[in-house]
Amino acid sequence: MTRPDPAGLLPLLRDAVGAANVLTEGDLSAWEQDWRRRYRGRALAVVRPGSTAEVAAVVRACAAHAIALVPQGGNTGLVGGSVPDDSGTQVLLSLQRLNRIRHLDAANLTLTAEAGCILQAVQETASAQGLLFPLSLAAEGSCTIGGNLASNAGGTQVLRYGNARDLCLGLEVVTAQGEVWDGLAGLRKDNTGYDLRDLYIGSEGTLGVITAATLKLYPQPKARMTALAAVPSMDSAVHLLQRAQARLGPGLTGFEVMNGFALDLVRKHFPQLRQPLPACPWTVLLEQSDTEGEAHARGLFEGLLEAALEDEVILDAAVAETLEQSKAMWHLRESIPLAQAEEGLNIKHDIALPVSAIAEFVDRTDAALQTALPGLRLVNFGHLGDGNLHYNVQAPQGAAAADFLRDHEAAINAQVYDAVSALGGSISAEHGIGALKRDEMARRKSPVALGLMRAIKQALDPAGSMNPGRLV
Amino acid sequence: MTRPDPAGLLPLLRDAVGAANVLTEGDLSAWEQDWRRRYRGRALAVVRPGSTAEVAAVVRACAAHAIALVPQGGNTGLVGGSVPDDSGTQVLLSLQRLNRIRHLDAANLTLTAEAGCILQAVQETASAQGLLFPLSLAAEGSCTIGGNLASNAGGTQVLRYGNARDLCLGLEVVTAQGEVWDGLAGLRKDNTGYDLRDLYIGSEGTLGVITAATLKLYPQPKARMTALAAVPSMDSAVHLLQRAQARLGPGLTGFEVMNGFALDLVRKHFPQLRQPLPACPWTVLLEQSDTEGEAHARGLFEGLLEAALEDEVILDAAVAETLEQSKAMWHLRESIPLAQAEEGLNIKHDIALPVSAIAEFVDRTDAALQTALPGLRLVNFGHLGDGNLHYNVQAPQGAAAADFLRDHEAAINAQVYDAVSALGGSISAEHGIGALKRDEMARRKSPVALGLMRAIKQALDPAGSMNPGRLV
Repeated sequence: MTRPDPAGLLPLLRDAVGAANVLTEGDLSAWEQDWRRRYRGRALAVVRPGSTAEVAAVVRACAAHAIALVPQGGNTGLVGGSVPDDSGTQVLLSLQRLNRIRHLDAANLTLTAEAGCILQAVQETASAQGLLFPLSLAAEGSCTIGGNLASNAGGTQVLRYGNARDLCLGLEVVTAQGEVWDGLAGLRKDNTGYDLRDLYIGSEGTLGVITAATLKLYPQPKARMTALAAVPSMDSAVHLLQRAQARLGPGLTGFEVMNGFALDLVRKHFPQLRQPLPACPWTVLLEQSDTEGEAHARGLFEGLLEAALEDEVILDAAVAETLEQSKAMWHLRESIPLAQAEEGLNIKHDIALPVSAIAEFVDRTDAALQTALPGLRLVNFGHLGDGNLHYNVQAPQGAAAADFLRDHEAAINAQVYDAVSALGGSISAEHGIGALKRDEMARRKSPVALGLMRAIKQALDPAGSMNPGRLV
Repeated sequence: MTRPDPAGLLPLLRDAVGAANVLTEGDLSAWEQDWRRRYRGRALAVVRPGSTAEVAAVVRACAAHAIALVPQGGNTGLVGGSVPDDSGTQVLLSLQRLNRIRHLDAANLTLTAEAGCILQAVQETASAQGLLFPLSLAAEGSCTIGGNLASNAGGTQVLRYGNARDLCLGLEVVTAQGEVWDGLAGLRKDNTGYDLRDLYIGSEGTLGVITAATLKLYPQPKARMTALAAVPSMDSAVHLLQRAQARLGPGLTGFEVMNGFALDLVRKHFPQLRQPLPACPWTVLLEQSDTEGEAHARGLFEGLLEAALEDEVILDAAVAETLEQSKAMWHLRESIPLAQAEEGLNIKHDIALPVSAIAEFVDRTDAALQTALPGLRLVNFGHLGDGNLHYNVQAPQGAAAADFLRDHEAAINAQVYDAVSALGGSISAEHGIGALKRDEMARRKSPVALGLMRAIKQALDPAGSMNPGRLV
């Protein structure tokens, strides 16, 4: 089924990238639908440029015809930020064919990759040289570095290495006018003007198209250790975090928390996964990276945990003895999203708070929700070291999930976000805004901040053609 | 001598901040002249607000009268970015009275400080709680945190902790329209819209006025070790850096380099300072911070240096045995700027390069300059771990420095900056642009980048009243 081409744009796009890379027929759902199937649109065409120059040509052609563009990487986003709307008038710009690693500079500890490179390919390229690219998240086998930067992805190593933003030294961007900004310098210091790099990072394709990035690498640590620790309360988990930070310093590279119900769901739906610790209110997953070696790492790690046990900060602990055990511990953590999906739809929140406010938030919000809707169940897990919780609300046992969401989602969101706002938190820690949270952000962000953001959007994309309806 | 008030603004300013804080008489050179005495202007008034609300009132009053504002912190900048021009029509906005530490949150590892806080006061407040604020630079006893952020200051700990930008989680800003943006959240993850924080950081007061910041703290390391190592070439220094990064990982917190002539000048002008190593082509100063303790630190450090000595990467080394020896090593490094000033005026460059290109830059540029102007002397030192050199050119022995500068500064700048540009470097690594490098930046930055910067300036400061003539 060929699509209509009201603007007469398709011939120009075919000239720009070759007819084979302008898709208008057949099943385009891989690009038109997000992977969680919450958003489904219809594109004028799916365009797959193979170079930065081709991206620029596509942007210019669309600009000349007043056609909107939706940039897309691996299409693994969680907020509906990279699929077209259902008007059939937007061009879906897929960056997947821009997937070359352009350069690895070991002496400078940098790697330059095109936007469409899969995150795992970047990690592996670094690793093959004995180096580390630390960005790590569940979708790493299919998400792209361009998408990671456009959404400022977080993940499990932020505690030590920061978000995607912190791992990027430079960008190449095609502006909304179709010009190429080459900002790919691999410099650790460069104070020559406004920070355009960080403006494009996290802008979700609404200001221009990231086509390549120069990324920071680190020496590979010599050893990694993983442990689980049972704690009686969120307060104790925060206390353990402080001890771990003081004792391990930058060696502490992961600090994840999981509530009892989250691990109960894993136990229920994945009974084949061994859980080293008995059920308890909260379980912490700690990861340590060591520059010296395993014996050194183990000594430090066990010292930390033994002292915490003695001081009753933790109830119990298990240190992985082998790489397999370590992977199994991470696998438990990573199985939570799947286990909750098996249990039925729930209401998801990706929130951040000052670490010092986390325990108060959890105690207060858990209680308020239970009072409002007795029996609801909380799947609460996340990156405690960064103050980031995935605070998800599951229907009461036996209730129909769809009905529960229909009846209560708006009220629960309001209750959770009000509590987050009251404690100075964020309604989107690492997933971004996209289409999903655009209205919520507009309601909660200060008018001054929104005014500044709109002024920037207007300045850099006056035609409003870059990923319209997202973010701002 | 009372100043003219063509716009009738002074009564409004006195209403806003109190008459005692609107200075128009007497010697105002502390605000009107930069500390290197390269820039001297004349303000309509020096205004010293005591709160964010007062800053906003001053900005609104100036905006209503179309009067330009020049924000100033500790007035320690190096590029003429914070003194008024000589028109007598600009208001000098001093942030010095905004000097409260608002809050220290140990569990969240954050500290919120007003813009006028002296950097050293911030360091000391953190230290009193057993915590570390790692930003450290020569002017720390008098520069302010607002100025550090407005100029994205660098310094000696960037290798491990990043620039001022990387140490800031949130800002409070008075916009060019006199509105207050409260972005002081102490969150480590927050993906709700464009990165306004990083846009204001490094914008040198041209987009608004930073009035407060929430800063990242770290646990204090348990031990610090310092060493000097003699290396035969810049290439060896880079090689030593790679070894130190692999061996010490994040424990490597300082890696400074000094050429032979820089230390010769210290030897000449400060003969009382003991130099632990004999003269050599290059000397590296290494600093290690350790979370375990001194014995552990010493073992790692000595292992690194012994292996480097054995493999002939270094010629000689001295490890500080006491805190005094450690301070003396840093004092040698910090005495270079003073020693070169004693020797006479020179031509300064604050450049950054990919670390992998540093040796080639030095070899090639040293030779080219020596060929063009036989006898000139190079004071070359800096933060090698960040690829940042202070590459300064001193007149030949016996030549009059002022004549040398007059005759050769433009040509030498062109030669140095051409070499920097050819290797993908930056003409301002950590000092910023200000008035000093504005034209040079406009010549060397890509038209696309300049266009984006001007669009942002126009969007956020359409009247052009924030620090005009600086940066863009």
